[in-house]
Amino acid sequence: MEHNLDQTMALLGRTPAVFNTLLRDLSAEWTESNEGDGTWSAKQVVAHLIHCERVDWLARAKRILEFGESKAFDPLDRAAHLKTNSDAPLPELLDEFARLRASNLEALRGMRLGPEELGLKGKHPALGSLTLAELLAAWTVHDMTHLHQVSRILAVQYREACGPFSAYLGVLKCDGHSG
Amino acid sequence: MEHNLDQTMALLGRTPAVFNTLLRDLSAEWTESNEGDGTWSAKQVVAHLIHCERVDWLARAKRILEFGESKAFDPLDRAAHLKTNSDAPLPELLDEFARLRASNLEALRGMRLGPEELGLKGKHPALGSLTLAELLAAWTVHDMTHLHQVSRILAVQYREACGPFSAYLGVLKCDGHSG
Repeated sequence: MEHNLDQTMALLGRTPAVFNTLLRDLSAEWTESNEGDGTWSAKQVVAHLIHCERVDWLARAKRILEFGESKAFDPLDRAAHLKTNSDAPLPELLDEFARLRASNLEALRGMRLGPEELGLKGKHPALGSLTLAELLAAWTVHDMTHLHQVSRILAVQYREACGPFSAYLGVLKCDGHSG
Repeated sequence: MEHNLDQTMALLGRTPAVFNTLLRDLSAEWTESNEGDGTWSAKQVVAHLIHCERVDWLARAKRILEFGESKAFDPLDRAAHLKTNSDAPLPELLDEFARLRASNLEALRGMRLGPEELGLKGKHPALGSLTLAELLAAWTVHDMTHLHQVSRILAVQYREACGPFSAYLGVLKCDGHSG
């Protein structure tokens, strides 16, 4: 479907609650285990989402409105959260993600974006020219990428426990493209 | 990690709420669109999970306790839900999934499974011999397979809307192994 701001806000608005429902009070065996060297735990994914709320998506939307293509987005440090947020308890991270997302959506609503603004172009440091609508769609799909990843991280903890059943469970065949 | 009944119940117990939080009141553009011919919508995934609660996982656990390997599990019709459940409104399906899951976990608790029971073997019609612990682990990973799938179904609705950003969004590279 084409980008639609209401549809985008509807999905973006519920992501923190989805992660909260899935992860809060689940044991550390589930939430702090990763998929192997160089991969993230579910908790680290939440820390990454927090980092993106702080410095990435909304800041890039503002950059487009203010500078168009004349000033590229700041590059995102995809590993920044491994240095900062990851030590906090998961419930605090979930609360922080929810708080930041609510605040960012409030700010997005305040921009009163219409078709003209959504068609404005900005400049991604690697991908080049893209529209505000494309940025907002990507924000939404980025949420789904990490939900996809977390469902896989949880699943792989039980890979051996499933015995012969693992042959039938698609998530165990996912090669981690969303890491 | 090794199978652990408490860890299994903890994750199984929250799956209906996760789907509810993600999907309830989201528009039909998100929840009733699929990934192309022969694939499922998010709503159809919920209908499939309902079917499995009704006829599959718990029934197989009972079969193991009653018959061991002497009577194989009934085969699962993976497309059964396409004929029956899919017409109901999504909120009703979400409620039904939650109700059935709660009832099945209550029944599972009532079985008072210890290490001895969890090690009992049953017979899968295609996979052959497997233990009750493996069945329960697979039930859990099956939930995650379908959460993985639903996050992808939602994401692909915005594949074109993301423009050049789609190159960076891992979920869009998932080849649908979990369908």
